[in-house]
Amino acid sequence: MEFSESEVIEELRRIFTDTDSRVLVGIGDDAAVVSTPASKIAITTDMAVENVHFRRNWATAEEIGMKITAANLADIYSMGATPEHLVVAVALTGLESMAWIRELARGIEREAQKCDVRIIGGDIVRGPTVTISITAFGEVKKPILRSGAAIGEKIVITNLPGWSAAGLFLLHGRVNVSAVHPAHAVERALAQFRAPSVRYLDALALRGAHAMSDTSDGLLTQGLQMADASGVKFEIHSSLLAKHPEFADLSALADAVGANVWDWIGAGGEDHVFLATGHDLPGYEIGEVMAGSGIELVGVTQSPKGFTHFN
Amino acid sequence: MEFSESEVIEELRRIFTDTDSRVLVGIGDDAAVVSTPASKIAITTDMAVENVHFRRNWATAEEIGMKITAANLADIYSMGATPEHLVVAVALTGLESMAWIRELARGIEREAQKCDVRIIGGDIVRGPTVTISITAFGEVKKPILRSGAAIGEKIVITNLPGWSAAGLFLLHGRVNVSAVHPAHAVERALAQFRAPSVRYLDALALRGAHAMSDTSDGLLTQGLQMADASGVKFEIHSSLLAKHPEFADLSALADAVGANVWDWIGAGGEDHVFLATGHDLPGYEIGEVMAGSGIELVGVTQSPKGFTHFN
Repeated sequence: MEFSESEVIEELRRIFTDTDSRVLVGIGDDAAVVSTPASKIAITTDMAVENVHFRRNWATAEEIGMKITAANLADIYSMGATPEHLVVAVALTGLESMAWIRELARGIEREAQKCDVRIIGGDIVRGPTVTISITAFGEVKKPILRSGAAIGEKIVITNLPGWSAAGLFLLHGRVNVSAVHPAHAVERALAQFRAPSVRYLDALALRGAHAMSDTSDGLLTQGLQMADASGVKFEIHSSLLAKHPEFADLSALADAVGANVWDWIGAGGEDHVFLATGHDLPGYEIGEVMAGSGIELVGVTQSPKGFTHFN
Repeated sequence: MEFSESEVIEELRRIFTDTDSRVLVGIGDDAAVVSTPASKIAITTDMAVENVHFRRNWATAEEIGMKITAANLADIYSMGATPEHLVVAVALTGLESMAWIRELARGIEREAQKCDVRIIGGDIVRGPTVTISITAFGEVKKPILRSGAAIGEKIVITNLPGWSAAGLFLLHGRVNVSAVHPAHAVERALAQFRAPSVRYLDALALRGAHAMSDTSDGLLTQGLQMADASGVKFEIHSSLLAKHPEFADLSALADAVGANVWDWIGAGGEDHVFLATGHDLPGYEIGEVMAGSGIELVGVTQSPKGFTHFN
């Protein structure tokens, strides 16, 4: 780096400027201090490593920042909580430009602002690989666990998962995307992979759910975890998933590039679609909680590629 | 790794088993949930990278875990706060044995238990370098900031810093430590470098301080940050530091290996000694807050090696 750690911190302090009354001590002391009226707090942490979780030639620094932040915020929402603050620890190799670092910070800030969340502290260290670790926390009155699903409840999702996996497929498969149709589906897949547009408000609307998670690791993996935690079986119907208004586009895209759309929908992660069970819930109904164990994707004979029981 | 991520998580869950009533949801859901009676919360995050912040041939996995945890806990205490919980994100290369991972986790747990702190969540990812990121948070009634120092106040420390730097010098300089005397000073230096024994209770005793920090980055750097934040000058007397009961040993060790003891005391970090200003404080008095700016180590003519204004 042609600049010191203190210059980077100064730059970040400008980006993460905070005049919020809930932040009593922001960046610059040994720790941040926030005020909280809540008696219950939800906390989650995620680490993302370059060339494992993101690639600099596949996404801008801003998109990388947004995507990692979204993963954290979705975890907080999927507990029935409202995120309030986050802290960011970053390892930089020393080869990044200040512009790249600034854009990364702006991406984190931009995604956080969608949820009225403040970046209150962090750490910057030197390392051989860019590594970003975010810890988010928020307030919660009644946590919604993975273990709350009961027989007879409906299974709903807030949106169709699989777009991020489709984007990864397009980038990974070195597909000539300009030749693929429908073009708007290509655009949506790439955009969702680079920085998913998570429907945070839809998670708020699911406060009445009995069990909830987000599809970080894919619909079937996450559904199976909920089924196991609840001691029930999740039965998901491909015919219900196929009714989703975006299914036709995603399916056409899969056909165009020779992929199986159920691999994307069933096993593709990182869309951060919210998956919930309960009665009279908003969202798209995709199945039902049954007696038994495990998860079944009714109507799909071949197990979606990437779905394993030991994720 | 010859084991899956889920096996590692299962192992960690066993180590971090928690039956504490403050932990409402522990490891295993999208986020942890804790109950907190406090209205103010202090949060800090630290990242440590292999071969930058620790080396596997210089310390055991348990010592590495203890040291990184100590750095976080000290930050919380130095805000006048009491740590309650922490979350850990770890990148593993896949070449670690389960025994090494288990010892790392035990080190984190062991240090946390000294402060009655619980590990409530985490993330395990694959990466090219072992990287550990810990976020700790605790309750605070009245935060003690770096900016609270006022002219006329005494400057105190809870212990003599420099031992960790001495240990690093011994390891880094490839000194034949078995030939160095006093042997107990060698032992203490190596032990403090590998896993510092931080006097957390002494930080609690400093709740009446007007300004406080811990010497993560060295006495002079941290003192300068406090002086700058407070708009005052810190005058530290080497003659007062030399009165500390451990000074003779540290000084003898420095002489034995051809080092300058003031480099260690003034610029050596990672001891996590608490540095505070105020009146009638417990601890070792080492100087006074004056009008002016900057920091002076009275009685030492050569600026301690490693002390820079732009740390």
